[in-house]
Amino acid sequence: MRTRLLSAASLLCFATLPAFADPLPSWNDTDTKSRIIAFVDATTDTASDDYVTPADRIAVFDNDGTLWAEQPVYFQLLYAMDRVARMAEDDPSILTSDVLKAAANGDLEGALANGEDGLIEIVVTSHSGLSVSAFEQDVSDWLETAVHPQTGAPIIGMVYQPMLELLSYLRDEGFATYIVSGGGIHFMRAFAEDVYGIPPQQVIGSAGKSSYAVIDGVPTIMKDPGIAFVDDKEGKPIGIDTKIGKRPILVGGNSDGDFEMLEWATAGDGPRLGMIVHHTDADREWAYDRDSHIGSLSRGLDESDARGWLLIDMAGDWANIWP
Amino acid sequence: MRTRLLSAASLLCFATLPAFADPLPSWNDTDTKSRIIAFVDATTDTASDDYVTPADRIAVFDNDGTLWAEQPVYFQLLYAMDRVARMAEDDPSILTSDVLKAAANGDLEGALANGEDGLIEIVVTSHSGLSVSAFEQDVSDWLETAVHPQTGAPIIGMVYQPMLELLSYLRDEGFATYIVSGGGIHFMRAFAEDVYGIPPQQVIGSAGKSSYAVIDGVPTIMKDPGIAFVDDKEGKPIGIDTKIGKRPILVGGNSDGDFEMLEWATAGDGPRLGMIVHHTDADREWAYDRDSHIGSLSRGLDESDARGWLLIDMAGDWANIWP
Repeated sequence: MRTRLLSAASLLCFATLPAFADPLPSWNDTDTKSRIIAFVDATTDTASDDYVTPADRIAVFDNDGTLWAEQPVYFQLLYAMDRVARMAEDDPSILTSDVLKAAANGDLEGALANGEDGLIEIVVTSHSGLSVSAFEQDVSDWLETAVHPQTGAPIIGMVYQPMLELLSYLRDEGFATYIVSGGGIHFMRAFAEDVYGIPPQQVIGSAGKSSYAVIDGVPTIMKDPGIAFVDDKEGKPIGIDTKIGKRPILVGGNSDGDFEMLEWATAGDGPRLGMIVHHTDADREWAYDRDSHIGSLSRGLDESDARGWLLIDMAGDWANIWP
Repeated sequence: MRTRLLSAASLLCFATLPAFADPLPSWNDTDTKSRIIAFVDATTDTASDDYVTPADRIAVFDNDGTLWAEQPVYFQLLYAMDRVARMAEDDPSILTSDVLKAAANGDLEGALANGEDGLIEIVVTSHSGLSVSAFEQDVSDWLETAVHPQTGAPIIGMVYQPMLELLSYLRDEGFATYIVSGGGIHFMRAFAEDVYGIPPQQVIGSAGKSSYAVIDGVPTIMKDPGIAFVDDKEGKPIGIDTKIGKRPILVGGNSDGDFEMLEWATAGDGPRLGMIVHHTDADREWAYDRDSHIGSLSRGLDESDARGWLLIDMAGDWANIWP
């Protein structure tokens, strides 16, 4: 142990020589990029009035529409439909409603026909009745081959390169990076560490009910039907309080589901940065805000200026979108 | 920032020279101490078959009876009774039951007279109707002067010195240390960082309901009546799964409320260490196990040998108990 630490320390002595490379190469040289870098410089410079100790450098990001794409539906729903189809192959009797039948047939329109109730039915059916570890393995397996229903691109590749760079940059500068998403916690953990470099304990999300039982001699945590916590809107500050217990100093979102988290975090003392990814790029991604059925952004658009939040113009601020 | 990192790295180059000091000076040189050190050595030595990467070195500890004392009642109940008394000074009409009246009068027997229902009534009444930050400040203020009802010793000093040393030792060896307790999450966060060196995001506990609201223009998280999560028994593995998302490799508890957490964690692959603090020292602390109304330990005593869990004999294994 000591030998290893010693060599790690020696490496660190060299590794921390100043590097002048651009930390955000996929961001155009706009005011947006300047403001992000100025915030990081100010909060990490001990000589700055805005210096923040590493323990308080908490940065939280929404996932759907902020770190990866979310159109035409949350990718978690695509997984849920796929799993309903696979479950129905084993046992067709699970298809007890038109919505579940549509899901099993890959009929997105039919799956959406019952609104939120139908979506919950699909998610609860597909996300329960197995152990947490089996579920995370199933998501991971699905992601190996899942492609986008419109573009045919691999789902796992539909993450935003500029945000990957931002996450790395923040961590290099001593920030802890968290996901705070309405998405399911076990769903996101199946890829968050590999894709975003965010370990499981820094993934906060919605959660179904779960239970502990010794099954055939094996202590197991099972995913059960029912919803334990919805990490959206007012749920986001509550989720952050319960899991982190500190108010973040940097928050990134993209929809009005992130409004309360932005409002709460940026109202704290000291330097704060709120940012909203505005989907303005119909050519390279999608363009949507107020009227979108997914990721609707209205209040955030109206109030971001007055609140000093940074509106990221995807079309103008991002040189590249995809990795 | 770079300058600071560089000096941190230079410091590290010297700080990691081997140190031969005993990491656990308050532990007697018994088999218990040897097993703990052997486990840490094996899991941190890259040449060992039992080597565990730092990211997976998760150690979790119960709080009441494991990190600090819990007799004659959980100290959180003493706080709750004190707060009920202070609340009643402002508004006597809150004392709507005999149990609450007893609590306000500092009558422990009366407060316990209604069993668990009464305790929940006292805790819910005293732990709601204020913001999380006001609550944590109130707990912190209380701890400045709170003394034990039997010994008159400061409550905040009734932590176990051997466990403080174990926490530090584990962190020095690259473990992340967590609390996983039936105690309230906001109650424990008021002192966990100062006393145990455990930051808020590594405190897992029971939680009341909470809500987010903008009150007089101030975004606030309020503690509400009602219980959101009970982090005890089967709740402990579930709390760990939801908050950490990894199975700990080292677990410390003291009562049957920790059984499921010990069972689940020690059933994982690779090296595992489960430990139970057995309260055997009536002279320096308290001696209790099977028949105690607080921290009852029965199944853990019966099964610890067969499961390979380490039973810590407080009287024999600890040279000192208090800091």
